Amino acid sequence: MSTQPVVGIVMGSDSDWPVMELAAQVMDEFGIGYEADVVSAHRMPQEMIAYGTDAAGRGLKVIIAGAGGAAHLPGMLASVTPLPVIGVPVPLKYLDGMDSLLSIVQMPAGVPVATVSIGGARNAGLLAVRILAAHDPALLARMGEFQAELKAQATEKGRKLRERIGS
Amino acid sequence: MSTQPVVGIVMGSDSDWPVMELAAQVMDEFGIGYEADVVSAHRMPQEMIAYGTDAAGRGLKVIIAGAGGAAHLPGMLASVTPLPVIGVPVPLKYLDGMDSLLSIVQMPAGVPVATVSIGGARNAGLLAVRILAAHDPALLARMGEFQAELKAQATEKGRKLRERIGS
Amino acid sequence: MSTQPVVGIVMGSDSDWPVMELAAQVMDEFGIGYEADVVSAHRMPQEMIAYGTDAAGRGLKVIIAGAGGAAHLPGMLASVTPLPVIGVPVPLKYLDGMDSLLSIVQMPAGVPVATVSIGGARNAGLLAVRILAAHDPALLARMGEFQAELKAQATEKGRKLRERIGS
Amino acid sequence: MSTQPVVGIVMGSDSDWPVMELAAQVMDEFGIGYEADVVSAHRMPQEMIAYGTDAAGRGLKVIIAGAGGAAHLPGMLASVTPLPVIGVPVPLKYLDGMDSLLSIVQMPAGVPVATVSIGGARNAGLLAVRILAAHDPALLARMGEFQAELKAQATEKGRKLRERIGS
Amino acid sequence: MSTQPVVGIVMGSDSDWPVMELAAQVMDEFGIGYEADVVSAHRMPQEMIAYGTDAAGRGLKVIIAGAGGAAHLPGMLASVTPLPVIGVPVPLKYLDGMDSLLSIVQMPAGVPVATVSIGGARNAGLLAVRILAAHDPALLARMGEFQAELKAQATEKGRKLRERIGS
Amino acid sequence: MSTQPVVGIVMGSDSDWPVMELAAQVMDEFGIGYEADVVSAHRMPQEMIAYGTDAAGRGLKVIIAGAGGAAHLPGMLASVTPLPVIGVPVPLKYLDGMDSLLSIVQMPAGVPVATVSIGGARNAGLLAVRILAAHDPALLARMGEFQAELKAQATEKGRKLRERIGS
Amino acid sequence: MSTQPVVGIVMGSDSDWPVMELAAQVMDEFGIGYEADVVSAHRMPQEMIAYGTDAAGRGLKVIIAGAGGAAHLPGMLASVTPLPVIGVPVPLKYLDGMDSLLSIVQMPAGVPVATVSIGGARNAGLLAVRILAAHDPALLARMGEFQAELKAQATEKGRKLRERIGS
Amino acid sequence: MSTQPVVGIVMGSDSDWPVMELAAQVMDEFGIGYEADVVSAHRMPQEMIAYGTDAAGRGLKVIIAGAGGAAHLPGMLASVTPLPVIGVPVPLKYLDGMDSLLSIVQMPAGVPVATVSIGGARNAGLLAVRILAAHDPALLARMGEFQAELKAQATEKGRKLRERIGS
Repeated sequence: MSTQPVVGIVMGSDSDWPVMELAAQVMDEFGIGYEADVVSAHRMPQEMIAYGTDAAGRGLKVIIAGAGGAAHLPGMLASVTPLPVIGVPVPLKYLDGMDSLLSIVQMPAGVPVATVSIGGARNAGLLAVRILAAHDPALLARMGEFQAELKAQATEKGRKLRERIGS
Repeated sequence: MSTQPVVGIVMGSDSDWPVMELAAQVMDEFGIGYEADVVSAHRMPQEMIAYGTDAAGRGLKVIIAGAGGAAHLPGMLASVTPLPVIGVPVPLKYLDGMDSLLSIVQMPAGVPVATVSIGGARNAGLLAVRILAAHDPALLARMGEFQAELKAQATEKGRKLRERIGS
Repeated sequence: MSTQPVVGIVMGSDSDWPVMELAAQVMDEFGIGYEADVVSAHRMPQEMIAYGTDAAGRGLKVIIAGAGGAAHLPGMLASVTPLPVIGVPVPLKYLDGMDSLLSIVQMPAGVPVATVSIGGARNAGLLAVRILAAHDPALLARMGEFQAELKAQATEKGRKLRERIGS
Repeated sequence: MSTQPVVGIVMGSDSDWPVMELAAQVMDEFGIGYEADVVSAHRMPQEMIAYGTDAAGRGLKVIIAGAGGAAHLPGMLASVTPLPVIGVPVPLKYLDGMDSLLSIVQMPAGVPVATVSIGGARNAGLLAVRILAAHDPALLARMGEFQAELKAQATEKGRKLRERIGS
Repeated sequence: MSTQPVVGIVMGSDSDWPVMELAAQVMDEFGIGYEADVVSAHRMPQEMIAYGTDAAGRGLKVIIAGAGGAAHLPGMLASVTPLPVIGVPVPLKYLDGMDSLLSIVQMPAGVPVATVSIGGARNAGLLAVRILAAHDPALLARMGEFQAELKAQATEKGRKLRERIGS
Repeated sequence: MSTQPVVGIVMGSDSDWPVMELAAQVMDEFGIGYEADVVSAHRMPQEMIAYGTDAAGRGLKVIIAGAGGAAHLPGMLASVTPLPVIGVPVPLKYLDGMDSLLSIVQMPAGVPVATVSIGGARNAGLLAVRILAAHDPALLARMGEFQAELKAQATEKGRKLRERIGS
Repeated sequence: MSTQPVVGIVMGSDSDWPVMELAAQVMDEFGIGYEADVVSAHRMPQEMIAYGTDAAGRGLKVIIAGAGGAAHLPGMLASVTPLPVIGVPVPLKYLDGMDSLLSIVQMPAGVPVATVSIGGARNAGLLAVRILAAHDPALLARMGEFQAELKAQATEKGRKLRERIGS
Repeated sequence: MSTQPVVGIVMGSDSDWPVMELAAQVMDEFGIGYEADVVSAHRMPQEMIAYGTDAAGRGLKVIIAGAGGAAHLPGMLASVTPLPVIGVPVPLKYLDGMDSLLSIVQMPAGVPVATVSIGGARNAGLLAVRILAAHDPALLARMGEFQAELKAQATEKGRKLRERIGS
């Protein structure tokens, strides 16, 4: 992370890190500068508001926010920044993340949150890359390569499966 | 409302008023001073934070907050006030208020919201009265009378039903 | 619990105690007198009715009731006391507490239950403190301190996370 | 209803009557004495307890109870009577009766409620008839005839459909 | 089971027995004759139809049927017998029994199934006892004693809990 | 329908016809002989069993069965015929067909039902055509043409939309 | 698998194989030629389109496709082949396969997918056999024998259960 | 739309236009060039693949895709383009868009879709603007102004509400 952070990865509690870490790994894979922090909407609301308000000025281009249950962090950040905010529904002990998903995705008209799947922090990272790549031909090409690698891996898995069942 | 407001009734949009009005009617029935306002978590976040932060100092004892969808208002207010906050899940066009309910009730440990039923603003008002009555013998007695009236009405409904079917 | 109980913590079965204990711990943390008991709506209905009917006269200010499945205890107590009743949806083996939540929160107009999250007994305790604090400046200040502690803990967690990932 | 009531049809509010009336019609069809009343668990809890406690002594054999939302009436009656209690989930404005269904059917071990479909008061009536018929050969035969009539009607519907489409 | 069976306990597969066994235990507790069998709606449909058709003639008074997933057994039996049929939703590997519950409880008008809670075979047994007791004063009294025992156990649990926390 | 029926379209009640008629229209479009009938699992169980048992012998190749709520018809037919059975979840007044869907699709291992979308009788018809076409090159080609027509219609809709917004 | 493949079993990832293998076992039991492969809608979309487009020409009669979450594979294949496509909702870590089920079954009018139960790959295999059997009297008879075996097994299970409980 | 399209708004059918039009209006409000088209995943799969494959090369920066039910369009486009794809769950006649939401948001790791609320096409448009603004200071400032306007409107609604109730 020697480069200047352009993606902010935040979460309501450090207990969300095992999920959110997957977003950070994507940043490392694509060589994108990022920062990670605990920014709790409910336990440090003023600091959370400040984080969102200052984000664009500090050079961030995208915010990834993970939260569980009554997951208010992504939506509150989106309300105080003009930047795109990606929300990751973190599943808690009960309800399999359905509460987290609805709390994040069902934002009122005016304040969007780009929601990914339950526990889908890796996709949140990849979405951040796509957003950055929309104005960065080199990164767009890198994303294309990444997709080609996905295809190669899936194709290889198919080859092995066919081999295994002798077809 | 000549009396000093002790209950704050807030909502994310004036479109929630037809639901939230039922809470205000309870205040009128019990002669309790209240204020009502639009305080949107997503459209006026700083003002929302300020509303919650100042509430106790301004003499409020209870806050009733209604919101729909990704309903962040009750939880965010609860994070900046030590007062009891009552959340009313306002049903939107889809999902019958299930998203509103989960977004309000599933708060993380540390920051409670007293949640009532979907669209249950009348009960939010009555809950505020009970909270005030816990330290006000006269109001507690008045709540007891209210419950006796409920019983009388239900009993009368039973009498009419029995009459109607001739039993 | 040398002090006079002002909060009653009741549950349908002693199997709910591992969940409900968290509410009792809050009472201890805030130095609030409480009592705890098994009061089953379905197995000892008359005693349950008596418990609710006598609660205010015995000096209780708030009742916290936990129940699972067809969770009738909070609502039934609310029907026979003018005090605020807090309901804790206890999750059972199936359905992740969704049945408990709906059975508690969806009360008819006239009889409110202040519902907290599934398994959220700690928040039930904190809500009881807030209700008591609404008329007790010292307790209100203590709740403010508690919230500051929450913030300090979250801030420290953020510091450690930033340290760990070297940002 | 000149005959002695053996079935009690109760509901939380007279607004449930349009649903519950279908149970009463079954009683009329089968010539079974019944009574109908408003017995609200939440608005007249003592009277509700008394109703259930006295039911067997007054000659009732089966109780049919309809309720919506946090539907406590069937389960509470079942807790104070040894008679079979049939619960009808009455759908309210939101959630399509799913809250009513779960609040009625998910009773704890020890206190059963015989639950029928959402809004299924007609089936509640027919279930009461079957319960009575289990010890009444004439009524059992009458239920067999009823089922034969159902078959005849369905068969006739099939004949008309085939005729209509010319098959 | 020396006595003549009056309750038939059937299930779609012997894998349902660990759940359904709880119904059989109730029969033993109350000294009621019963039979238990595998009667699969989907694997032995003709025999299932025959089981239901012959049940009343063989002296059965109540049928308890457990099934999971697309749980057709209770409803199909109810369609070929005039006896009361109690349905037990057996939870399978996925969906926590919600599919089983809806498949059993949502019967069309004309053919009722008395549905109990997910996995609630013990309550199915107790409901069968209540149905038999409706015409059997001795059994009704025994059910009353059973309910008194439930109360005594719950009361004792409360005493121990109070003792444990020193209140 | 001058041709010999190879597809049987059955439903639990003639009230399902407005939904199921869409399957019949597909048969007409593709010139496939079909029959339609009311075959209620719950009101005429023996006839339903007979219908399924005799289907293959009468020359049917595919059965389409629509049902709502506790929708047992498709699964019961599948248990008595070796033919492919297509199930159409018919939505009832409550629950938007979710009960119908789960009751049809969640069949136990051994007895499959080919389930289509809620209210998706047109797709049930098209699935029947595909099943027949698997062994009928001319019909397979006709299905290919049908898919080309779908594409042409969608393409034309796109053209009109682009025209309308001037893009 | 010495015979020419007539059934194609495909899945989005080799991690789906433990579920989908059950479909392949059915092919072996019935002596039907099949092929199995990884064909990911999201990781190798062009190859997936090609697989579906070529399927009929290569001699396949039925395609079985398993997928989880936003399960697009069955529906996309159905859009490019006139053959019957059977969809198997594979359950992922969260939501118990409900997302997979809805993503597969709720296809728009025009493009059907024959959906089986969550994780129901064995039934997908059996459905494929029924589809093939619709035009193959020998295979149809074999399916009839299979159903008779199911009955024999269920009957034997019943015998053992009756023996075990001494009834 | 005289400017070069940088946002592509596509949908499965022109019946989705009343919902998706809200995204186009945002483009007009912010002066962003866009194109709109019907691109059905299920009715014109090859053209859909081509649309996604060519999008970046044609100068598009963001794709907004709306779809209902088994909503495959957003995910399939995301699989063939490296650009950010925003998915709008369009609610259909049943299930209130819950099927559409899950089909869009629950994408497997590797291929993200930025999902907005059910029917939330306006937010999809605003999210596209934020994505474009991340690299366009003028547009970022314009988004800041838009958010200030939202605040002004909400504040004015609050003023009118306070006026109306005389507080």
